[in-house]
Amino acid sequence: MIRLVEVGPRDGLQNEATTVGVEQKVAFINALAAAGERDIEVGAFVHPKWVPQMAGSEDVIKALPTLDGVRWSALVPNLKGLERALACGIRRIAVFTAASETFNQKNINMSIQASLDGYRPVVHQALQAGLSVRGYVSTVFVCPYEGDVKKERVLEVTQALLDMGVDEVSLGDTIGAAAPNDIENTVGYLLETVPPQRLALHCHDTYGTALANVVAGLNLGIRTFDASAGGLGGCPYAPGASGNLATEDLVYLLTRMGFDTGIDLDRLAQASGVMEAALGRQLPSRQLQRLRQLSRSSCAGSP
Amino acid sequence: MIRLVEVGPRDGLQNEATTVGVEQKVAFINALAAAGERDIEVGAFVHPKWVPQMAGSEDVIKALPTLDGVRWSALVPNLKGLERALACGIRRIAVFTAASETFNQKNINMSIQASLDGYRPVVHQALQAGLSVRGYVSTVFVCPYEGDVKKERVLEVTQALLDMGVDEVSLGDTIGAAAPNDIENTVGYLLETVPPQRLALHCHDTYGTALANVVAGLNLGIRTFDASAGGLGGCPYAPGASGNLATEDLVYLLTRMGFDTGIDLDRLAQASGVMEAALGRQLPSRQLQRLRQLSRSSCAGSP
Repeated sequence: MIRLVEVGPRDGLQNEATTVGVEQKVAFINALAAAGERDIEVGAFVHPKWVPQMAGSEDVIKALPTLDGVRWSALVPNLKGLERALACGIRRIAVFTAASETFNQKNINMSIQASLDGYRPVVHQALQAGLSVRGYVSTVFVCPYEGDVKKERVLEVTQALLDMGVDEVSLGDTIGAAAPNDIENTVGYLLETVPPQRLALHCHDTYGTALANVVAGLNLGIRTFDASAGGLGGCPYAPGASGNLATEDLVYLLTRMGFDTGIDLDRLAQASGVMEAALGRQLPSRQLQRLRQLSRSSCAGSP
Repeated sequence: MIRLVEVGPRDGLQNEATTVGVEQKVAFINALAAAGERDIEVGAFVHPKWVPQMAGSEDVIKALPTLDGVRWSALVPNLKGLERALACGIRRIAVFTAASETFNQKNINMSIQASLDGYRPVVHQALQAGLSVRGYVSTVFVCPYEGDVKKERVLEVTQALLDMGVDEVSLGDTIGAAAPNDIENTVGYLLETVPPQRLALHCHDTYGTALANVVAGLNLGIRTFDASAGGLGGCPYAPGASGNLATEDLVYLLTRMGFDTGIDLDRLAQASGVMEAALGRQLPSRQLQRLRQLSRSSCAGSP
């Protein structure tokens, strides 16, 4: 069994030019859960001045039902964010830093160490309040400013997050530049110290390598993968980065490889299709492209 | 060293709705060679009634220069096609059949056995004339009509082509439905009998699995891969199939993995970009998407 973490409503929509209203978000998230998604990141308690797309996260969370076996989570940057998370009753939060100094500086305007120091009380208080916490590390393989990132640095940051009590660390190929050898090198190195159940892989598909990287992760024993419905989103402060790996594409691959995801691909693509229409732009999910093409198909020639 | 076989000017353009003129084709092919491509399929001697996009293949071939280390090739369906190939002086041809009866029937209107019987004299005469011959097998993993294809059948057809004297067989994931486990199962099985230098992998990217499949092929020892500049083309008689694997995406992956392809990615993308403009549709190559996005980029948020 593979665990998928759906990041479309947060990491996806946060990076779309069009801001989606609370009602549409709630309908989208409910549709994703109805398609079989079990772990869905639904919002972020960041300042709406910086990320206007995430304004109204409280309203989204309050409007979501309690569903058996389904976990909603939200991004929390600091203690103020944690207060908001606790106030609206969400049970899982995520904190985020990077493995590259320059990227972290540009992304959240502080050093990696400062961000880790800031998260320690956040994670502590969240755990005290009975919440669970996920950690994100961005630019695990390649930084758009610094180039290749050292695996030793990735281990330090990952270990620091685990030490403060996050239950898993999602390793982000933020600009989608990694190839399977990068996964083998860096994730293979982490796995010498960290058990595979504590790691997730978060791929972007900028160069089309995302599924190849997932397979490299599978071969190493990773069983948790992030993806974004429809391939929503892109990457903040990462010039030229395109969308997240589309959940549909990941589900197709895993299903074809004989893994059970519990997700209904047709219902999932339908949910993404509604969001695609709302955003008014074609999403990169191959499944959506294929459906669009089927509806107007005719081709000729051989072989 | 990895060998790439560029099929954009043939397999690609043949499946585009817009027919491209001889002059544009010649400029495109020359630009591909200038970018470092060494093995380029430039036309097809099929009946223009069936494949109008390939009309004028003689003129294209006659207009191409002789370049050191560069091989032009063309598709030949029968003895009539071979006559045309010989008349215009091309030195390499390709013959094509399938591993699925229904697909072959719909694609070239004859049984697999009949197509093999028809090719035997074609290959014989071509070899006699000093030409070299490549073989294509379509629907090696999945057939749009019959579903999963038996690996034993693929071996039979592959062996029949090798026995008549083709120097390599390109194994086509015609509808792009395969995942790495399919490559391991079928190609792994063929490799028990056939040396890796006699096999090439021809991936389509319908579901985004093409590069993952290439990596599975690399892991098995395959060193020749087909690709189409820009991701030109689609698939004949295969409902819903989208383009060939884009050469740019393949070059990105291989380069990042430390393999030498001898291809200049920027010049390649430039060549595809010119064809993209000529066709008036956005091509699926991630490299082209990225370049388009870079030229209008701005995104926000985290992580």
